[in-house]
Amino acid sequence: MNTTTDTPDTPARIMQRLGQQAKAAASRMAIASVSQKASALRTLAQLLREHTDALQTDNQQDLERAVANGLAEPMVDRLRLKPAVLETAAQGCEQLAAMPDIIGEISGLRQLPSGIRVGQMRVPIGVFGMIYESRPNVTIEAASLAIKSGNACILRGGSEAIESNKALAALVQQALRSAGLPEHGVQLVPTTDREAVGHLIAMPEYVDVIIPRGGRGLIERISRDAKVPVIKHLDGICHTYVDDPCDVDMAVTVTDNAKTQKYSPCNATETLLVARGVAAAFLPRMAAVFAAKGVEMRVSPDVEPLVQAPEAQIRPVEEADWSTEYLAPIISIKIVGGLDEAIEHINRYGSHHTDAIVTNDHRHAQRFLREVDSASVMVNASTRFADGFEYGLGAEIGISTDKFHARGPVGVEGLTSLKFVVLGEGQVRG
Amino acid sequence: MNTTTDTPDTPARIMQRLGQQAKAAASRMAIASVSQKASALRTLAQLLREHTDALQTDNQQDLERAVANGLAEPMVDRLRLKPAVLETAAQGCEQLAAMPDIIGEISGLRQLPSGIRVGQMRVPIGVFGMIYESRPNVTIEAASLAIKSGNACILRGGSEAIESNKALAALVQQALRSAGLPEHGVQLVPTTDREAVGHLIAMPEYVDVIIPRGGRGLIERISRDAKVPVIKHLDGICHTYVDDPCDVDMAVTVTDNAKTQKYSPCNATETLLVARGVAAAFLPRMAAVFAAKGVEMRVSPDVEPLVQAPEAQIRPVEEADWSTEYLAPIISIKIVGGLDEAIEHINRYGSHHTDAIVTNDHRHAQRFLREVDSASVMVNASTRFADGFEYGLGAEIGISTDKFHARGPVGVEGLTSLKFVVLGEGQVRG
Repeated sequence: MNTTTDTPDTPARIMQRLGQQAKAAASRMAIASVSQKASALRTLAQLLREHTDALQTDNQQDLERAVANGLAEPMVDRLRLKPAVLETAAQGCEQLAAMPDIIGEISGLRQLPSGIRVGQMRVPIGVFGMIYESRPNVTIEAASLAIKSGNACILRGGSEAIESNKALAALVQQALRSAGLPEHGVQLVPTTDREAVGHLIAMPEYVDVIIPRGGRGLIERISRDAKVPVIKHLDGICHTYVDDPCDVDMAVTVTDNAKTQKYSPCNATETLLVARGVAAAFLPRMAAVFAAKGVEMRVSPDVEPLVQAPEAQIRPVEEADWSTEYLAPIISIKIVGGLDEAIEHINRYGSHHTDAIVTNDHRHAQRFLREVDSASVMVNASTRFADGFEYGLGAEIGISTDKFHARGPVGVEGLTSLKFVVLGEGQVRG
Repeated sequence: MNTTTDTPDTPARIMQRLGQQAKAAASRMAIASVSQKASALRTLAQLLREHTDALQTDNQQDLERAVANGLAEPMVDRLRLKPAVLETAAQGCEQLAAMPDIIGEISGLRQLPSGIRVGQMRVPIGVFGMIYESRPNVTIEAASLAIKSGNACILRGGSEAIESNKALAALVQQALRSAGLPEHGVQLVPTTDREAVGHLIAMPEYVDVIIPRGGRGLIERISRDAKVPVIKHLDGICHTYVDDPCDVDMAVTVTDNAKTQKYSPCNATETLLVARGVAAAFLPRMAAVFAAKGVEMRVSPDVEPLVQAPEAQIRPVEEADWSTEYLAPIISIKIVGGLDEAIEHINRYGSHHTDAIVTNDHRHAQRFLREVDSASVMVNASTRFADGFEYGLGAEIGISTDKFHARGPVGVEGLTSLKFVVLGEGQVRG
């Protein structure tokens, strides 16, 4: 913090300062009372509503620059801080405020033969760094999760949203101060210099974990270079397996939703596996739905006679399709002998993200849940449900495709750790 | 696995083969039934007892080589597979067999507004690699924890214990086979070539986590070079803080045990902090105990008038002492103003391993538990209790000084992960 007006504020120096401030704030965030945290979250919701107009003005600067830079229209749209987006963010803060506070909770306390009582206390991890792109509302999601979980955070949003993010971060810090919490509990990286990211991910003395949200390239780059743990979200190659026996109506509805409700999310189904015994009853109906919605079907040879669609919408599947995340109106389809082959296919080609079975067979359901090695395993439900809000986590900081620490949608709990608590009456070890 | 008798078996090729075999075994280990796992563990206990004599012979080879190589006597002693050590290992297996099986357990299942029910299932991590030194009984501890937790593991013991480890691993594989489990569920690296370690820690396609047990140098090197997560155990700079008010008798007994019951474990206390208000009542008595046991006291100036001991046993403390892990009959002693200063000192100089307060003040106890940022925090108990067995974990694969994933003593649970389970009746996302 030896910055004077004479020394230029380099990215290295800026990040060093943010790191020190975050570390200092973290110990105060960790012991914040339940009511302080709830108060900060409710105040933030109120500030977002009060400043909706002003935020539009800040956002407008980002939008104009984006258009001037020739950003594609969908990207510009993701940048937009519509009043509805701000209202959703405000409601998210209020929901988090209303949820039970899990910090300090002691679980499993029991007495052991020596007489000591041992349990585990849930505590914040410390400081997390978040790296994300475009959508400025992620600033509020991350900040509100940091407050609720008692962590400090350093946020690095996309350069295209810098004015919006600065305005939002200022409101967050105002809310923190009003609740008697340290304003450095949530800090936005004020520079768009890319060098700052390199420093953020390499400060183990200040930052305990990095959460990147963005494309595969970004996440792989960060994982490779980070000197601290990274909560990674790689591909979502999700499967729906239509089992024999199953309710064919349900299978059509669930598969339709899993593929077509939205094409771009990571939890959309990319591969449909169908048990041979139900293929003739299920596939023609399913294909009709896909044909009507313009979904391209990439099919194995035995599937082809069972599906009808305009010529352009059907083509032979290739080996590479089984491990491709389309994020588009495309689905690969395979007939399998039954449950064993389905599980084998999923564990081999999938990305361990989210996979579902549609079945009426209890034992098949149990085996699928147990043996499919994915972060979310589902019976008779659409893969699209794999989401922090749908799972009741209150909010989601990301989805982990790792097995270590947190797996699947990561909410408040994923930002915490358990420490052992030992209560004695003077016991010593023999 | 293209090894023929013509191609030499390089460390790279050996580790590739072990990795593939472990990965294949892992999916079978993960779905092993409770009774299969218990049966394997009980059989292993029985085999250890039946082969106690034969194991002595194998162990003798290691001992003779160690002596010939001029290994220091304490090191040779750690190598020794005494019948008592084998009996303890056998009992450990039986205890694990008798413990509840947590794999497949679903927690927190609840219905959400969409109608889906969501919970979390405890599942094995997959494959862990363990790197350890000297004591061959660690082979049995690691193998039994792998079996109980449904993981596969690759064990790399110290080269000085290779014959003992090979004999023990053969018994483990016999026990696995007898229970209908894959023998590759537990594999020992058969070569002592150091290059093998480099491969083991850099196979993310086969190995999910690495657990090193050994000196700081080993652990830092592995953490730096590993391409997968590492459960790290760095320093144990543990504190006992004697608070005002406290039971002075208890404070003397607990501090004595924390420092002198054994000097070499990581959970032995290295620094004693004493509240000013109890210093005059506590320190002379405590110093008398340390003086009698030959413990060197490194003291701040205000401590010196309160302690009496032979001249050689008292010297002024230096700044570096506060962050030194002695693992020896040495203790640093400081008088602090009270709880705030004690917590600040511990969080600043400690290693976030294990710290204890001796106090009669309820509010101080609660603040200490909450605010000291360590893996184990204790009230009125000896820091020496920080141990998987003492905590009732059944066994301990290591102690984590990280906050990510597992913290503190790591038992079966630390070798598992939680996956989301979603049960529906055809729900789709709106």
